[in-house]
Amino acid sequence: MHVDLVCVDMIDPKDNQDTSFIHRTTDARPPRNISHYLIGRPLSTADSEDQTISKRVGLAVFASDALSSTAYATQEILVILAAAGAMAFGYVFPISIVIVVLLAIVVISYVQIINAYPEGGGAYIVAYDNLGRFPALVAAAALLTDYILTVSVSVSSGVAQIVSAYPQLFQYRVLIALLCVVFITIINLRGVKEAGAAFAIPSYFFIVIMFITVGTGLFRFLSGSLGSVVDPPEIEHFGETIAGITAFLLLHAFASGTTALTGVEAISNGTTAFKEPRGRNASITLVWMAFILGFLFIGISFLTKEVHAVPSESETVISQLARTVFNGQGLPYLLVILGTTVILILAANTAFAGFPRLSAMLAKDGFMPRQLTYRGSRLVYSYGIIALAAVASILIVIFQASVTRLIPLYAIGVFLSFTLAQSGMTRRWWRAGHLDPSDKTTKHAHNLRYEKGWSFKMLSNGFGAFCTAIVMCIFAVTKFRDGAWVVLIIIPLLVKVFFTIQHHYKDLASHLTLEKFGGLPARKTRHRVILPVSSIHQGALEALRYAKLLSDDVTAIHISIDPEETEKVQKKWKIWGEGTRLVILDSPFRLFIEPLLEYLEGIIDNRQPNETLTIVVPQFLPSKRWHKALHMRTAEVLRQELLSKHGVVVTDVPYRA
Amino acid sequence: MHVDLVCVDMIDPKDNQDTSFIHRTTDARPPRNISHYLIGRPLSTADSEDQTISKRVGLAVFASDALSSTAYATQEILVILAAAGAMAFGYVFPISIVIVVLLAIVVISYVQIINAYPEGGGAYIVAYDNLGRFPALVAAAALLTDYILTVSVSVSSGVAQIVSAYPQLFQYRVLIALLCVVFITIINLRGVKEAGAAFAIPSYFFIVIMFITVGTGLFRFLSGSLGSVVDPPEIEHFGETIAGITAFLLLHAFASGTTALTGVEAISNGTTAFKEPRGRNASITLVWMAFILGFLFIGISFLTKEVHAVPSESETVISQLARTVFNGQGLPYLLVILGTTVILILAANTAFAGFPRLSAMLAKDGFMPRQLTYRGSRLVYSYGIIALAAVASILIVIFQASVTRLIPLYAIGVFLSFTLAQSGMTRRWWRAGHLDPSDKTTKHAHNLRYEKGWSFKMLSNGFGAFCTAIVMCIFAVTKFRDGAWVVLIIIPLLVKVFFTIQHHYKDLASHLTLEKFGGLPARKTRHRVILPVSSIHQGALEALRYAKLLSDDVTAIHISIDPEETEKVQKKWKIWGEGTRLVILDSPFRLFIEPLLEYLEGIIDNRQPNETLTIVVPQFLPSKRWHKALHMRTAEVLRQELLSKHGVVVTDVPYRA
Repeated sequence: MHVDLVCVDMIDPKDNQDTSFIHRTTDARPPRNISHYLIGRPLSTADSEDQTISKRVGLAVFASDALSSTAYATQEILVILAAAGAMAFGYVFPISIVIVVLLAIVVISYVQIINAYPEGGGAYIVAYDNLGRFPALVAAAALLTDYILTVSVSVSSGVAQIVSAYPQLFQYRVLIALLCVVFITIINLRGVKEAGAAFAIPSYFFIVIMFITVGTGLFRFLSGSLGSVVDPPEIEHFGETIAGITAFLLLHAFASGTTALTGVEAISNGTTAFKEPRGRNASITLVWMAFILGFLFIGISFLTKEVHAVPSESETVISQLARTVFNGQGLPYLLVILGTTVILILAANTAFAGFPRLSAMLAKDGFMPRQLTYRGSRLVYSYGIIALAAVASILIVIFQASVTRLIPLYAIGVFLSFTLAQSGMTRRWWRAGHLDPSDKTTKHAHNLRYEKGWSFKMLSNGFGAFCTAIVMCIFAVTKFRDGAWVVLIIIPLLVKVFFTIQHHYKDLASHLTLEKFGGLPARKTRHRVILPVSSIHQGALEALRYAKLLSDDVTAIHISIDPEETEKVQKKWKIWGEGTRLVILDSPFRLFIEPLLEYLEGIIDNRQPNETLTIVVPQFLPSKRWHKALHMRTAEVLRQELLSKHGVVVTDVPYRA
Repeated sequence: MHVDLVCVDMIDPKDNQDTSFIHRTTDARPPRNISHYLIGRPLSTADSEDQTISKRVGLAVFASDALSSTAYATQEILVILAAAGAMAFGYVFPISIVIVVLLAIVVISYVQIINAYPEGGGAYIVAYDNLGRFPALVAAAALLTDYILTVSVSVSSGVAQIVSAYPQLFQYRVLIALLCVVFITIINLRGVKEAGAAFAIPSYFFIVIMFITVGTGLFRFLSGSLGSVVDPPEIEHFGETIAGITAFLLLHAFASGTTALTGVEAISNGTTAFKEPRGRNASITLVWMAFILGFLFIGISFLTKEVHAVPSESETVISQLARTVFNGQGLPYLLVILGTTVILILAANTAFAGFPRLSAMLAKDGFMPRQLTYRGSRLVYSYGIIALAAVASILIVIFQASVTRLIPLYAIGVFLSFTLAQSGMTRRWWRAGHLDPSDKTTKHAHNLRYEKGWSFKMLSNGFGAFCTAIVMCIFAVTKFRDGAWVVLIIIPLLVKVFFTIQHHYKDLASHLTLEKFGGLPARKTRHRVILPVSSIHQGALEALRYAKLLSDDVTAIHISIDPEETEKVQKKWKIWGEGTRLVILDSPFRLFIEPLLEYLEGIIDNRQPNETLTIVVPQFLPSKRWHKALHMRTAEVLRQELLSKHGVVVTDVPYRA
């Protein structure tokens, strides 16, 4: 083991010259334990490059959330239109077209974001760079909240599908949902590459089966053989009475349909997961995803209208569509249902790709605990993954895996982040447009330079921001009483937490900085040692020996609660105390820490400026955890209590059984 | 503040002569906080004498458990007799007489115990002294278990009475029971004297009202005006079929009735609570209690037979008796029911007097955590009181305050301790009988000397032990399936725990003892200091300064995870490192603790025998608890990891924001 060699080097006195540096590589590896089998052998930091993903895998990782929304977006529109009766269902197709236009605007905007900020970060970075810190943190809080909800909602809805097929599993739904979360967590802890590989098959399976469904449906429509839904479920009126087709109704239906957009922001947050050239690969993947999503959504909406599928709690629109297209519930129908169920659960995986990266970015900027920037043995942000899984699991337990109760919390955050991201881009185009066109150097931190057509880009992003803002407001208003208010509390709360954490780190850094630091005050020459002893045994003598090694000025102190014990201490000290002064403090109220503190504070207040004080505590160190319950933790308490005293060090000299 | 004066004394160099002792009294008092209002001003150890109770108060404190059993013991007998039909009820009176004879034997035995062991401890001390350590611990485990159950059962049964009067409270029964426990706990934390004063009124109220009831009943019986129960509840047959009156049935009924004896052991455990002369006061109180208990029990059983009260789930025997004696449910009847309810809850108070004292005794002998010997600000064993309340509350929650589910666990422990206490006394009389009658000096630890009539005393205690052993067996067999098996697991488990704890303390003491200790090895002269640094700031420099104060041989070590950070560290160290050697260890697997440990272990393995190693860790000390989440606890982890290394001290030099 070469570390031994290092030690030998070091005690070599010729090495002891002016500020010597010894630079070695440790061969310490993570201990071999169960996690090896669960998440694989540890990866060296040098393997980072290798832990990036191709466009094909990237699509599987980042698109599952967006694509899974094709499973319910059309239905969401119909549910709202149902308030105006069945004849309003015809609007589903034009509304879908408008949504796809909005999708295009949002996607174009994110492609621009990725190109401008290829180091990732999406709405947070864009808002930070163009709008300022506060909007950036709002966007981050909104996204983090939504990622957590994505996990809870998508797993719960997948489990709901399973449970509706096997009702006897209903009582185990929370357990099944939690197991799904654990499964996805472990796969993600194995690293982004392995997660991509594991989840690529089901994701592509869903894409293929949906393309076949929509393709077959269109073919049968064109050939005239596409009929209507046989035995459609009863239409449920979600409103109280049948209302007219108002502008507000259409707007509301449009807003509900925009849930199809959730998830498109994920790639922009996870750019760093892609192989180089990152920006290019990520934006190509995003465009692919947008085309697949747009085609499937339009196709499903069109066919839904043609086969006269209806919104119902008892059968999904996808199910009605599939059995109409495939003439009954044969194998193709079953494959569609299976693919839909799996993609709903896998949507959670997108959040696992986005959340840890975003929180690591926030942690790096000091807004979240620094530990979140730590990459685990498989080079993923393990703490972030585990934090996401934990919070999402808690939500699943609290809401008992009920989609109905979770869904109102969902999607507001995403649209808030869309709005902020696009507002940021709008501002950016405005700035770019006012730069000197002849100046080829880039201004500002992030490659800002004059671009032609800036005004058109600015308008399109501005329009996108406007639309997504409207959608967000509609969500907030219509879902407010069902739980959306929780989100409207949590987001500002999170922002407050970000600021508080950053304040702490900044405060600490400004106290500790070496800039403009004049050096420490004159070297302290006097070292005084206080040794509290409760009984005299080998452990106490060891501590005394150590105290004497530190300084010649040692005072022992004994707090007397029981006079008999004190007499014993005094007798033994005469023999073993090596002539050290012993102060005995009678404690009439049987207190131990308080008199000791009072005594120490007296000394601290009277000490000279060049004096350092060390309190050496003989401390039993339990080798078994339960032994802790059998002993006092004096050193720990003293350390906590003397926290605010400068130049006081509490040392425990351990003794063991 | 005179502690300052002590400090001034101490830095006076003339004081620094051969082993000087300075003896002062601290004026540190417990901090003034909410507990002042809850449990009263702190008491000095010197007040101990004042915190003892008179016979009158002692009766209220210690008798409530035993007296409360008159509220159900007669009914317990009838329940068993019911299996043989109503004509068997006549046996209730003779059986009660036999039980009172057993009570007399047990009480006489405990009076002898108190006189022999006036420092308290009951069955535990008697068994320890006469039978050995193992039986003593069995007795202690049995008693502790039963004290806990006493609290759960008595509070639950009191609450059950309240709930049967106000059924709308049923859903809150657990909460009400827990509030009762909290209330009794707080009163007991106020000190034994205040608890006695608070609970004397309801205890005496119960005694008086029961005497009036029994007295009125007897008077009406003698004057011939006592009728039968009007409208008696339906007799419930608790067995399956009506059986004959067998010897076993009578024995079973007898055993059930002996629950009247539970609680008589309490005074023997709590002798120390009494004013001097303790032994005399305690035994007089015990005799009083026995007479009251015996009279009430006999009286109730007699009247029960005369008025033809029947066992029933819907109305207690006491209720039937009271409304017959007082001709209906007027005020006197209500007072009886009220008194019974209150005394059932107050029975818990006896356990609060017994449990903490017994556990303090066990802790003093090293069988339970030492902290249990600590007397809180009101001179009671606060940890014991809180532990009892906590465990009893957990039981109440688990069993949902159901008396039916708790009662099978109850009383076995008490009879086990009765048996062991009386066996111990039997052995003691045997020993006393074989001493030399002319030798007036006392042998053995506890005043053992020849006594006349030892053989009769031995026989009576032996018979008592035999009877209580039989009762215990009957309990264990008949209640086995209803839950008594739990107790039969818990008692041995507790004994095992006692031994494990004692083993730890003994082991530690034998490692640390100064007897036959040859002194520490030669004074260590070389002191080497290792300083791990992760970034260079004022906190790290402060730690460097401290490290240099300790020794000239300081090595700093930096674990490199991020090359950029490492470069910064290196640059800053050149400026601020005061020429100290810096070892940089690259950690390719992004580990921090493991490479550091590997390095330290290399040094530890190679160090010379006269060398002490101190690891000085610059450690952020959070002033707010949540700050902990934002920082690593390196020092703590290192300390835990280097636990088994001798002569290694981990010191954290704190820095703060």
